[in-house]
Amino acid sequence: MTERKPVKLQNHSEDSPASAWRSALNQIIFGAETRAGKAFDIVLIIMILLSILTVMFDSIEAMRNQYGQQLYGAEWFFTLLFSFEYLLRLICVRKPWLYARSFFGFIDLLSILPTFLGLLIPGAEYMLTLRILRMLRIFRILKLSEYIREANILMVALNNSFRKITVFLFTVLMLVVVFGALMYMIESSESGFTSIPTSIYWAIVTITTVGYGDISPQTALGQFVASMIMIMGYGIIAVPTGIYSAELMKSQKSKPIDNESCPGCGATGHDFDADYCKYCGHFLGEDD
Amino acid sequence: MTERKPVKLQNHSEDSPASAWRSALNQIIFGAETRAGKAFDIVLIIMILLSILTVMFDSIEAMRNQYGQQLYGAEWFFTLLFSFEYLLRLICVRKPWLYARSFFGFIDLLSILPTFLGLLIPGAEYMLTLRILRMLRIFRILKLSEYIREANILMVALNNSFRKITVFLFTVLMLVVVFGALMYMIESSESGFTSIPTSIYWAIVTITTVGYGDISPQTALGQFVASMIMIMGYGIIAVPTGIYSAELMKSQKSKPIDNESCPGCGATGHDFDADYCKYCGHFLGEDD
Amino acid sequence: MTERKPVKLQNHSEDSPASAWRSALNQIIFGAETRAGKAFDIVLIIMILLSILTVMFDSIEAMRNQYGQQLYGAEWFFTLLFSFEYLLRLICVRKPWLYARSFFGFIDLLSILPTFLGLLIPGAEYMLTLRILRMLRIFRILKLSEYIREANILMVALNNSFRKITVFLFTVLMLVVVFGALMYMIESSESGFTSIPTSIYWAIVTITTVGYGDISPQTALGQFVASMIMIMGYGIIAVPTGIYSAELMKSQKSKPIDNESCPGCGATGHDFDADYCKYCGHFLGEDD
Amino acid sequence: MTERKPVKLQNHSEDSPASAWRSALNQIIFGAETRAGKAFDIVLIIMILLSILTVMFDSIEAMRNQYGQQLYGAEWFFTLLFSFEYLLRLICVRKPWLYARSFFGFIDLLSILPTFLGLLIPGAEYMLTLRILRMLRIFRILKLSEYIREANILMVALNNSFRKITVFLFTVLMLVVVFGALMYMIESSESGFTSIPTSIYWAIVTITTVGYGDISPQTALGQFVASMIMIMGYGIIAVPTGIYSAELMKSQKSKPIDNESCPGCGATGHDFDADYCKYCGHFLGEDD
Repeated sequence: MTERKPVKLQNHSEDSPASAWRSALNQIIFGAETRAGKAFDIVLIIMILLSILTVMFDSIEAMRNQYGQQLYGAEWFFTLLFSFEYLLRLICVRKPWLYARSFFGFIDLLSILPTFLGLLIPGAEYMLTLRILRMLRIFRILKLSEYIREANILMVALNNSFRKITVFLFTVLMLVVVFGALMYMIESSESGFTSIPTSIYWAIVTITTVGYGDISPQTALGQFVASMIMIMGYGIIAVPTGIYSAELMKSQKSKPIDNESCPGCGATGHDFDADYCKYCGHFLGEDD
Repeated sequence: MTERKPVKLQNHSEDSPASAWRSALNQIIFGAETRAGKAFDIVLIIMILLSILTVMFDSIEAMRNQYGQQLYGAEWFFTLLFSFEYLLRLICVRKPWLYARSFFGFIDLLSILPTFLGLLIPGAEYMLTLRILRMLRIFRILKLSEYIREANILMVALNNSFRKITVFLFTVLMLVVVFGALMYMIESSESGFTSIPTSIYWAIVTITTVGYGDISPQTALGQFVASMIMIMGYGIIAVPTGIYSAELMKSQKSKPIDNESCPGCGATGHDFDADYCKYCGHFLGEDD
Repeated sequence: MTERKPVKLQNHSEDSPASAWRSALNQIIFGAETRAGKAFDIVLIIMILLSILTVMFDSIEAMRNQYGQQLYGAEWFFTLLFSFEYLLRLICVRKPWLYARSFFGFIDLLSILPTFLGLLIPGAEYMLTLRILRMLRIFRILKLSEYIREANILMVALNNSFRKITVFLFTVLMLVVVFGALMYMIESSESGFTSIPTSIYWAIVTITTVGYGDISPQTALGQFVASMIMIMGYGIIAVPTGIYSAELMKSQKSKPIDNESCPGCGATGHDFDADYCKYCGHFLGEDD
Repeated sequence: MTERKPVKLQNHSEDSPASAWRSALNQIIFGAETRAGKAFDIVLIIMILLSILTVMFDSIEAMRNQYGQQLYGAEWFFTLLFSFEYLLRLICVRKPWLYARSFFGFIDLLSILPTFLGLLIPGAEYMLTLRILRMLRIFRILKLSEYIREANILMVALNNSFRKITVFLFTVLMLVVVFGALMYMIESSESGFTSIPTSIYWAIVTITTVGYGDISPQTALGQFVASMIMIMGYGIIAVPTGIYSAELMKSQKSKPIDNESCPGCGATGHDFDADYCKYCGHFLGEDD
């Protein structure tokens, strides 16, 4: 969820003067303010969607049998296109290594690797759906700053409640292990409780109120214990919700984070009064 | 959710003097204050309910075989009745085009079209159940203003949390696509994971804790990943609830919206200090 | 959820002097402060539990085949016992008709009728489980006043959010009808969507995230629409929770209701400063 | 969730002078501040995890057939190891009886008993998974005090809402019994409603929105009643969440509890201003 405002680099080129075309490319690829930058983003998102549709269609057997060749071609077309884009990003960013290690840099790499991996390991190409994570860039072409502020509020609340939710999940984990073992002892393997791990899986299915029904207790005692797990699960769902509601109400008053991206490494999340990137030290010029 | 208070039109007939019967008809059809207006509304709601029951009965095979003729007749009877009512509404409203384009105007049209469409496309007549949306008028004959105020509070809170919920749903969508593809790779098609779209459908069934069980993981790894999705779904249901709770607490203090409908186009949602309709500019006379 | 504090009736017997034994009986049956009153309540609750167990065992075929006679006898024993208790209650209360019409009077009657009805309509005796509602009296022998205060807070919050929840349920109802009809048109009857009512049932199963899986969409389009309903259901569960959370936070500050019961008719819910019963006008003596 | 800070016992040895090695052992086993204490905790947690894995593997039939002997040996190895550790704990604590009766003392005993019980009752050894409860000690090697504070906030909120949640669960219990009996009367035993207890089990599965689907109504009336239970369950899930959210918001401001453990009996939960253990009266020395 980054917003990258390209800065007039020539104004404060402290370390090395950027060539004009790199600066322009940076504005197009990373920026969303200029007309070219916006167009680039829209084309990119359409490409991402098309490439995901290609992967999806390829997984449907009837489709693969009929259009296998074309889909395979399209897959490679999108992969090469995104590889080229990835190279351009590396070139036009001032500190490529920092971009490559950033969240979006990692996602961008991840969205081209599976095709190459698919040559070695059959089936790996389906992880191309990881490309959907690139869709996070969509917030840049929407009225982004507002959405990012909202996302930040949600994230801050999540961060603040992290410890409480860890404690909660730990408790759920222990409940699930103990009840799983208990049900394994009560129910026979005919009902589907074939081992403790399977019974734990069943307990998770039950306590989260998913309830597939592929495994379900048949004995009276088993149904009684299962009822207790259900009511417990029904009750304790209140805990994370309560935690998060309380946190969100607090964090809605907290100061939001600046959403501009660093022109040097593309990182975001700087404080509003920050003048330099906290990751690469690049000047976060605000002279326009 | 409209409240239409018929205004003494003769007092401020700026553009064209309404004939007496049109004004009276307006009071009966759109108003709920007079005895005739209330009676009209009650009869209308009974008719809507009966017409929906007709459609439902017609969909039950045993019923259709035995009473097919009568049900077909009743369907046409209600459709012609509602068509006539729709025409009356168009006639007695001062700006018919604005009414036709309003929410309720659209619903009113939608509730007669399927029967005619059913002549061309068999099965389309089942969309007559859209008539249930006309039931929203029921709030007019209940102690409406109170209910509408409550509904407004709920809507305002939904509107204010729209962006947060968009961000949330977007995140869920991405999780579901990535996990769907992952499960497609892990599980064989014998367990029901026949394609990535189907696996995404399964992931939605799981993350929302619906859990039909028509598709469910059979391998140990698949069950492990599924457990993670469930716990995730169990945890993140806290997010929309937290968002909405926090928003509702704020909006309960916010100023409610005026619920009177415009005598010109029937639109509602004007501010309390509004003197003219914001859609058609008609005077929202409050001289009584 | 009543608390009945027997009052020294002789001190303020305005209308008719109660005979000593009726007053003593009142203290035992309706009171929970004296040793005899507490013992009566405990015995009563044990009897209620035993009678419910009898009904449950009677419903298990293997049990009925073996102990049918004994269970039938026990059923009549408890019914006659509770009938006798009901009569005693009518006798020792000063205004029997008001007691009979009160919530608990109604429950007490309901818990003896099904046995008699079972003579006429086979199967009606299973409604004896309504006796469980008598268990509400259990709050009297626990540290009751605290529990009743909590229950009151929950009830007040429910009452205050009644209109909001009505609006919400109405919206859910309409969604479910429209989506049910839509799915009936999309899916064939082989998947279980045999009629619109059945499809509406499926939509409720889905939107509430219960998800039995006895009926589930098989076509791609059906699964897509179902996914939308699920995500909708997942999102709008936030609405009642938000409503109730916000309301509960407000009502926790509101003044609680007095929980003493009227010695005349047994009604509760009087304001703290009330001197006379608001239902029968009896003096709510507080002279001890 | 205990934090045990070993106190320099020689400074205030009021009752009996502890031998040096017992004091040192206490620091290693119960403490987490010294290097040796931390190492002991980490080794312990690894042992616990390994022993649980052993039990799980033993429950998988294919594993048991192949590695039965080794798994049986490992089980006894871990049990003897934990028995030895339990004895050490008893020795180095000043008041062993109080430790043995404490929460963690009980858990420690529980995690060795099943193996011995398994000699008498086949299958009892699966309850060795109760060892997972020992994992609660993990909070000691994490930045514990913060997690324990969070856990305390969650616990305080749960305690405060205990009565409200009791009232809520009681209501759910009664709904479930009444609706279970109702469905037993409506549905035949072919749909799975074979007895009232089974029907109550179904009602719990439904009202908690788990929905296995192993039992599901087939008649129109049954589906109608089931729909009502679902919508009820969907609505009342708001109640515990609302209760807990409201409570959590209050308790976040309340004063946290001191997390130091008593050097005498290992108990925690003392108030911040407590000078002596509230369970054994030992001095909670804070002179370092």
